Amino acid sequence: MTWMCKQSLIAAEFTGVMILIIFGTGVVSQVVLSSNPAVAPTPKGEYLSISFGWAAGTALGVWVCLGISGGHINPAITIAFATWRGFPWKKVPGYIFGQLMGGVVGAALVYADYFHAIDIYEGGRGVRTLKTASLFSTYALDYMTNVSCFFSEFFATAILVIVILATTDKGNGPPPLGLLPLVLFILILGLGACLGMETGYAVNPARDLGPRLLTSMVGYGSAVYTFRNQYWLWCPVLAPILGAQAGAMFYDVLLFNGRESIVNKP
Amino acid sequence: MTWMCKQSLIAAEFTGVMILIIFGTGVVSQVVLSSNPAVAPTPKGEYLSISFGWAAGTALGVWVCLGISGGHINPAITIAFATWRGFPWKKVPGYIFGQLMGGVVGAALVYADYFHAIDIYEGGRGVRTLKTASLFSTYALDYMTNVSCFFSEFFATAILVIVILATTDKGNGPPPLGLLPLVLFILILGLGACLGMETGYAVNPARDLGPRLLTSMVGYGSAVYTFRNQYWLWCPVLAPILGAQAGAMFYDVLLFNGRESIVNKP
Amino acid sequence: MTWMCKQSLIAAEFTGVMILIIFGTGVVSQVVLSSNPAVAPTPKGEYLSISFGWAAGTALGVWVCLGISGGHINPAITIAFATWRGFPWKKVPGYIFGQLMGGVVGAALVYADYFHAIDIYEGGRGVRTLKTASLFSTYALDYMTNVSCFFSEFFATAILVIVILATTDKGNGPPPLGLLPLVLFILILGLGACLGMETGYAVNPARDLGPRLLTSMVGYGSAVYTFRNQYWLWCPVLAPILGAQAGAMFYDVLLFNGRESIVNKP
Amino acid sequence: MTWMCKQSLIAAEFTGVMILIIFGTGVVSQVVLSSNPAVAPTPKGEYLSISFGWAAGTALGVWVCLGISGGHINPAITIAFATWRGFPWKKVPGYIFGQLMGGVVGAALVYADYFHAIDIYEGGRGVRTLKTASLFSTYALDYMTNVSCFFSEFFATAILVIVILATTDKGNGPPPLGLLPLVLFILILGLGACLGMETGYAVNPARDLGPRLLTSMVGYGSAVYTFRNQYWLWCPVLAPILGAQAGAMFYDVLLFNGRESIVNKP
Repeated sequence: MTWMCKQSLIAAEFTGVMILIIFGTGVVSQVVLSSNPAVAPTPKGEYLSISFGWAAGTALGVWVCLGISGGHINPAITIAFATWRGFPWKKVPGYIFGQLMGGVVGAALVYADYFHAIDIYEGGRGVRTLKTASLFSTYALDYMTNVSCFFSEFFATAILVIVILATTDKGNGPPPLGLLPLVLFILILGLGACLGMETGYAVNPARDLGPRLLTSMVGYGSAVYTFRNQYWLWCPVLAPILGAQAGAMFYDVLLFNGRESIVNKP
Repeated sequence: MTWMCKQSLIAAEFTGVMILIIFGTGVVSQVVLSSNPAVAPTPKGEYLSISFGWAAGTALGVWVCLGISGGHINPAITIAFATWRGFPWKKVPGYIFGQLMGGVVGAALVYADYFHAIDIYEGGRGVRTLKTASLFSTYALDYMTNVSCFFSEFFATAILVIVILATTDKGNGPPPLGLLPLVLFILILGLGACLGMETGYAVNPARDLGPRLLTSMVGYGSAVYTFRNQYWLWCPVLAPILGAQAGAMFYDVLLFNGRESIVNKP
Repeated sequence: MTWMCKQSLIAAEFTGVMILIIFGTGVVSQVVLSSNPAVAPTPKGEYLSISFGWAAGTALGVWVCLGISGGHINPAITIAFATWRGFPWKKVPGYIFGQLMGGVVGAALVYADYFHAIDIYEGGRGVRTLKTASLFSTYALDYMTNVSCFFSEFFATAILVIVILATTDKGNGPPPLGLLPLVLFILILGLGACLGMETGYAVNPARDLGPRLLTSMVGYGSAVYTFRNQYWLWCPVLAPILGAQAGAMFYDVLLFNGRESIVNKP
Repeated sequence: MTWMCKQSLIAAEFTGVMILIIFGTGVVSQVVLSSNPAVAPTPKGEYLSISFGWAAGTALGVWVCLGISGGHINPAITIAFATWRGFPWKKVPGYIFGQLMGGVVGAALVYADYFHAIDIYEGGRGVRTLKTASLFSTYALDYMTNVSCFFSEFFATAILVIVILATTDKGNGPPPLGLLPLVLFILILGLGACLGMETGYAVNPARDLGPRLLTSMVGYGSAVYTFRNQYWLWCPVLAPILGAQAGAMFYDVLLFNGRESIVNKP
């Protein structure tokens, strides 16, 4: 594998996450900002829209890079595939770098698209608080304990991985590869509607940390990192990575029996 | 068939129902609990979300075990397949056991995820009433008579089975097997939106009894069984089993003519 | 073709329309009836649910009979296929009979399922007015003129037929036959959301007349026929039949060029 | 290629855009007009319906002409395919003419369907203002600057093109051609829900200019052109054309490597 080709894999993951984040942070921004009558005369969406927006972003983000890089668009998935499906470890850093950058750039584009509305919503030009930082990254509900936060992300990511491993397992009943994103559409729609209220179903370190980096750079400052004592690290980064491991272990112990997998390319 | 393999079938049905219940009871919990402002500042869903959540859970639950166990994830379906499609009766108890356990474990995971919010919604730590027991199992609307309750579940399950038998009948116009869960997504979305208000469209004994067992163990007590005089047994357990038989009889008498079926594996 | 087989075709169309009507009139009933707090504590749906319910009913109704009878489930389609695609005219009466009966039986089952709630909604046992007759059949909005009513149904059915002829035309870009109902899901979702408010998008004589016959038999009386001077005949029956002809003519003049069609079986 | 055949390509694009516009302007009309109690007793949709309506229109519009003309139904796409995928430039004017006419005729049919309701909504027969002109074409929100308007359309169209090029690239992971409209359904649903509030996601010059021509002819007069100083030209026409170029350049520089494309027919 040449450097040229490696670069293309990183570019593919970059683009996939960028698309994911454009739709995902785009829909949260549209729904929240348009609820302010000074922004839009009538609301342009509701909570269910958010579930559909992230679902669309995930399906389209994977379609954009599926045949080139495998469509991981999630460091927790990349690490799980390296641990359990023979994805080469030496590619992992490049993949994660591309994914994180995709998150930063996707959030930057949405920020550029909506910053006038953010000014109005925050009540002044350049005013930036966690109220709109949460358009880009996840922040837990008030009542949640730290243990609950961790469990919520760990749990949702484990489910995500069980479904992904099942629907890419040739020994199970997978769809045609080119239609796999339909499964992901349904999966993310479901996660948002069913397990999304507590910690915002990050389930993807790049989805959360990329946009968080962006917010820290455009005026939200260090508040995005100091929320709840390193929340940014242990909840939307570590919990998904460990949850993905747990989900993969669950699937491989209970259901997988060494048959060929779509993602097990020799 | 070795013991090893039998175990794998049970594990597959277990996992399928677990996924179904995680999404299904998850979405009811999220929609109902987040309607309380002490839980979430704005509602995180509405009734239509519930229809989509159960639809997603069903599609994903079937995808997770489709190629291993056939993706029944419903004792009423398993019994109907044994009666009408040659599914071996000796496997039925194992399947049903796995399905029930999947219901218990799925509900336990959702309970673990949401119990802080349940405390707030119930108005006190450890207070548990039918108000939140209904997040996990089905309870009929007040005005319903017992006959109506039974008919509602019997009827909805018959429709479910007619559609499943038609879309797995090679002599009809089935989709590719790996996309069958898309049919189920539409089917359960439709059942929830169209025939769901009266008895909560259990249409699946494991979907209802599994989580009900869980609630009886975590503090809801015997109230979940004494509601409406053994309601738990005759409405969401017996009615779906008999409705599935009626649906299968309908399909086989009117439309099936002995051609090969996807689920008729010799 | 033997009598046996003919019977099976009629049974298939019967079942397809029955499924369509169960979901379709089911969703209207659920959304409207549950908006009354005496029926359900919270609404069990909204207008968008109705669009999804009819979409699900259409997709599932077609899946149930697609490979047996071709999945017409609509007399306007059957007549258009006979006129433009060589479907044998001698089968037309049988198809239409089956479709109408499916409409009657489907509506009867939904009526049996919801009649307690109808009693509550109407404000008394056995009170039956057009307020709930409209759960089963279509009635135009007040402001509409007769010409507008006719145009609305004619227009929507023409669009329906253009899309159906295009997506079954092997010379165009059709989906695999077993996934054709996905197109219909999107099509009916769209018709309901986009062109549905004025006359309720009957676009199918059996969908409207079948349930209307049922309502006239269960206590709504002749009011369902006297509304707007034979409305039942010229708006939801004749307009769709003629609109289907117009749509087929449009497609065949502009886009079809004699290539083989999925529905043109020799 | 004979004149006959050329005509058929133009007719195909005409029909595709006509279908797109019927559903798209239809859903906006239904949702906005039915919010007036003098039109309909209860609202017949909400913002999410609009996203689904345009999604349905796009998928169905492409299905109607996919195998005949390639299913562009968007001048920005046609020009991008000519620039980057070898689509013959000499066919471009015919395609764009067909697309524009499809936009005019589609809007005319919806106008004919809804003009009584428009009269009621506007408060008098023949009263026509931008309030209902916006049912047919796009008008930016008040707070938006001109630069933001341009960026919003440029950005959304670039995303559109990146996804289209990826899902038609045989070297990536495309779906079967006959199911490509499912991708577009998800894509347009996402664009509407996520990036649609500011300028109404025209992303298609024919979608906006065709209906705008119609409105200028049926009584809205020159106001549809004088809004914001030639807004009609630089925002929904030029920005999508340039955005499509940017999206195509992005895809081809970062991800495409000369492999065969579905749309690269020799």
